Amino acid sequence: MSLEVFVAECLGTMLLLLLGNGVVANVALARTKGNNGGFLMVNFGWGLGVFAGVYVAALSGAHLNFAVTIGLLFSDAAEYAPGVDKTFATTLAYLAAQMLGSVIGAVLAWLSYKQHFDDEPDPANKLGVFATGPAIRSYGWNLVTEIIATFVLVLVILSFAGTPTEIGPLAVALLVVGIGASLGGPTGYAINPNRDLGPRIAHAFLPIKGKGSSDWAYAWVPVVGPIIGGALAGLIVQLISFPVIAA
Amino acid sequence: MSLEVFVAECLGTMLLLLLGNGVVANVALARTKGNNGGFLMVNFGWGLGVFAGVYVAALSGAHLNFAVTIGLLFSDAAEYAPGVDKTFATTLAYLAAQMLGSVIGAVLAWLSYKQHFDDEPDPANKLGVFATGPAIRSYGWNLVTEIIATFVLVLVILSFAGTPTEIGPLAVALLVVGIGASLGGPTGYAINPNRDLGPRIAHAFLPIKGKGSSDWAYAWVPVVGPIIGGALAGLIVQLISFPVIAA
Amino acid sequence: MSLEVFVAECLGTMLLLLLGNGVVANVALARTKGNNGGFLMVNFGWGLGVFAGVYVAALSGAHLNFAVTIGLLFSDAAEYAPGVDKTFATTLAYLAAQMLGSVIGAVLAWLSYKQHFDDEPDPANKLGVFATGPAIRSYGWNLVTEIIATFVLVLVILSFAGTPTEIGPLAVALLVVGIGASLGGPTGYAINPNRDLGPRIAHAFLPIKGKGSSDWAYAWVPVVGPIIGGALAGLIVQLISFPVIAA
Amino acid sequence: MSLEVFVAECLGTMLLLLLGNGVVANVALARTKGNNGGFLMVNFGWGLGVFAGVYVAALSGAHLNFAVTIGLLFSDAAEYAPGVDKTFATTLAYLAAQMLGSVIGAVLAWLSYKQHFDDEPDPANKLGVFATGPAIRSYGWNLVTEIIATFVLVLVILSFAGTPTEIGPLAVALLVVGIGASLGGPTGYAINPNRDLGPRIAHAFLPIKGKGSSDWAYAWVPVVGPIIGGALAGLIVQLISFPVIAA
Repeated sequence: MSLEVFVAECLGTMLLLLLGNGVVANVALARTKGNNGGFLMVNFGWGLGVFAGVYVAALSGAHLNFAVTIGLLFSDAAEYAPGVDKTFATTLAYLAAQMLGSVIGAVLAWLSYKQHFDDEPDPANKLGVFATGPAIRSYGWNLVTEIIATFVLVLVILSFAGTPTEIGPLAVALLVVGIGASLGGPTGYAINPNRDLGPRIAHAFLPIKGKGSSDWAYAWVPVVGPIIGGALAGLIVQLISFPVIAA
Repeated sequence: MSLEVFVAECLGTMLLLLLGNGVVANVALARTKGNNGGFLMVNFGWGLGVFAGVYVAALSGAHLNFAVTIGLLFSDAAEYAPGVDKTFATTLAYLAAQMLGSVIGAVLAWLSYKQHFDDEPDPANKLGVFATGPAIRSYGWNLVTEIIATFVLVLVILSFAGTPTEIGPLAVALLVVGIGASLGGPTGYAINPNRDLGPRIAHAFLPIKGKGSSDWAYAWVPVVGPIIGGALAGLIVQLISFPVIAA
Repeated sequence: MSLEVFVAECLGTMLLLLLGNGVVANVALARTKGNNGGFLMVNFGWGLGVFAGVYVAALSGAHLNFAVTIGLLFSDAAEYAPGVDKTFATTLAYLAAQMLGSVIGAVLAWLSYKQHFDDEPDPANKLGVFATGPAIRSYGWNLVTEIIATFVLVLVILSFAGTPTEIGPLAVALLVVGIGASLGGPTGYAINPNRDLGPRIAHAFLPIKGKGSSDWAYAWVPVVGPIIGGALAGLIVQLISFPVIAA
Repeated sequence: MSLEVFVAECLGTMLLLLLGNGVVANVALARTKGNNGGFLMVNFGWGLGVFAGVYVAALSGAHLNFAVTIGLLFSDAAEYAPGVDKTFATTLAYLAAQMLGSVIGAVLAWLSYKQHFDDEPDPANKLGVFATGPAIRSYGWNLVTEIIATFVLVLVILSFAGTPTEIGPLAVALLVVGIGASLGGPTGYAINPNRDLGPRIAHAFLPIKGKGSSDWAYAWVPVVGPIIGGALAGLIVQLISFPVIAA
């Protein structure tokens, strides 16, 4: 995998996390202009974060999400992107690019909202900007929700290839808006391992004023759930033999 | 009709119901992150449920709605989908695939929000996630609303064929957002027989904690209304001789 | 102008008014599911009403708005639609089709929300579903607002022709959403003579329970303003010599 | 640079400011129909202002934003628009067209909401329609936010060229919606020097009833930040050697 592909995937994931964490900061932190802007605004922020990221990551096929990489791995797609083979090394390279991009994006979102983090009294709101957390904690059911939601995401992305459409980035963006609105209620829809783990790492090491725990006890759910959901989607797509080309 | 076509229609309708029932659960059930997210968020959830479903159901022409099947039947479209003839058997097969998908989708939405169903005290809110109900009960007028709203849906879908557009799935999605926002006020816009009946059946047999009646007295309205509306649209389109190809 | 073109223009305008008046009914009338759904939902309802109408009115070029017809008349466009000349007779035919469609659409919206009209105590809310009214009454300034807003609408529509885009109906829909959000604050954005006059006529003759005045004193503003705005846009486009083809 | 190109860029920027300032007026000023319509509505208003402006400014490549011009200058794009060379003179001409359009757009928005400006008691709300202001004043951090947000905007716009998409104007519009929702919380996202400076000048010279200070102390932040962000994006794009053509 060329450096250009690595950089593209990293940059795209960075934009996703910058805009995604940013919209949560805008809605959740004290004294912002978008305070209490509503869940639909959060959905649009994440969806349009994907949108921005996809354009920048055209060279890498714009996975931006390790669950998508896993979905392609388990599907009968021939490549990860034009000219990028599906090997153990490239799989790890995607993961590394996505993780690096996630952490950088989370740091940039923190810098963008630095004054508001300093002003926010509630440590839970600060963590909420970085990482997901369940509305009702129940690791088993939270996992079920993340599996189902990620399954939908990856199944539809893998199905795009079989349909005549020219709206690629917009289609993924709207899909993420829809999944957020519809299935984001219980867990805040990580549906992407690095989307949660990267920023949680950033939360752990950044000098955020008055921050609390990074809640590592929950951290495995938004990693394991999306990986299972993505793998299931890849297998199902193989089973029903949709044609799949590199996303 | 091949198994692939059946599976595609079933899977697409499943996604529609999973995301559609999901967004209502998010807005209506206790302690979700999207609680009280507003009617527009509900409209987007359903619209983007259609969007996701259409991509997965490309092989079957993505009716996802028996009113659309009926509309095509009554129009002068030559086929239900490329290679799928309009016969009594295929009509029933579409209905079966749609009903099966609807029930599975409703079950998955319930699983995704399991903890919140358990926590929700009001049985009416639980039923509301699955099935529609009128704001003001009046079977006659409720039927009028469903007929008009479904007529709009199917008329515009059948008209897509005569216009140069590349945004097929997005166009249907936005159309559903618009119909929901505009004509969803009185009955909650079933505009699709299986969208209401499938989940109502799921509500009846699922072991939902503290559930109430499935309100079977109303169940005929969102079945009969959309079928009439779809048939009218098909006839009108024939009358004014728009060219109609398989959706 | 053939009957097909007349019917297409009439049907398209009917859908615009049905969905447009419908969304106002949903937000404004008592006991609907979308009650108090917000101004953005109203903007989307009208925008997607245009969207639906444009697909159905492909044969007539989908003016759906006499200000658009006037804009084309004053521009150097060769035709109103492929095969439809710009003559006094066709101009009147467009107006007639639009007015007829507006009235029918308003009647259908009323039927869809019949129970909620009966239940609504405030006559002003009932009229507000049909016709626009100014937030602060001042005929001169209200006229200015309608002229500017319609100028934007028609200017951009006439400019579409000079740009490479495939999203025609979506582009008009989004434009209407944007104009509504941005310039709809003072007068409720008629930006279309028949959009206001047709439903006002319907309000006058329909047997709406407990209705009040049809406010004919204001009725000239949303007719004259849009016609001036549309004509100005047509002239400006000629002046700056953008290429204009039939919308 | 031909007069047509100058007029196109000016007209496009005018529409951007007319709709952008308009939506803030609708949300912020007394007695409008969109009062308190929410931050997402503001985001859509600005995004769709860009959308409208891009269609009208096709001839100039629709920068509408001096940060975009600067981004193209610092990138390896060959031209500003088809047939428009990157020279000192054309750079100044873009700036002049954008500034002129910004001022005119702000004046038209003021005229559209004249009665509501007169009725609004709070001078800060009046200024807020024209110019941005920070939620928490801190010139250094406000600058950081504007740099990051504009960097995202220009980076993605410059990346469009390397991807197969037909939704140009819509893509920019949605990008602006997303950046507003996600990164608009601290400073109200100028992300465009003339978007802030032009209307601030208009605020200074217009006879706005009961207006207060134009807050010139802050005025350099939304000028300098976007210019730095745009330049950085241009350099980064060169560095990672994405192909860039004239926007």
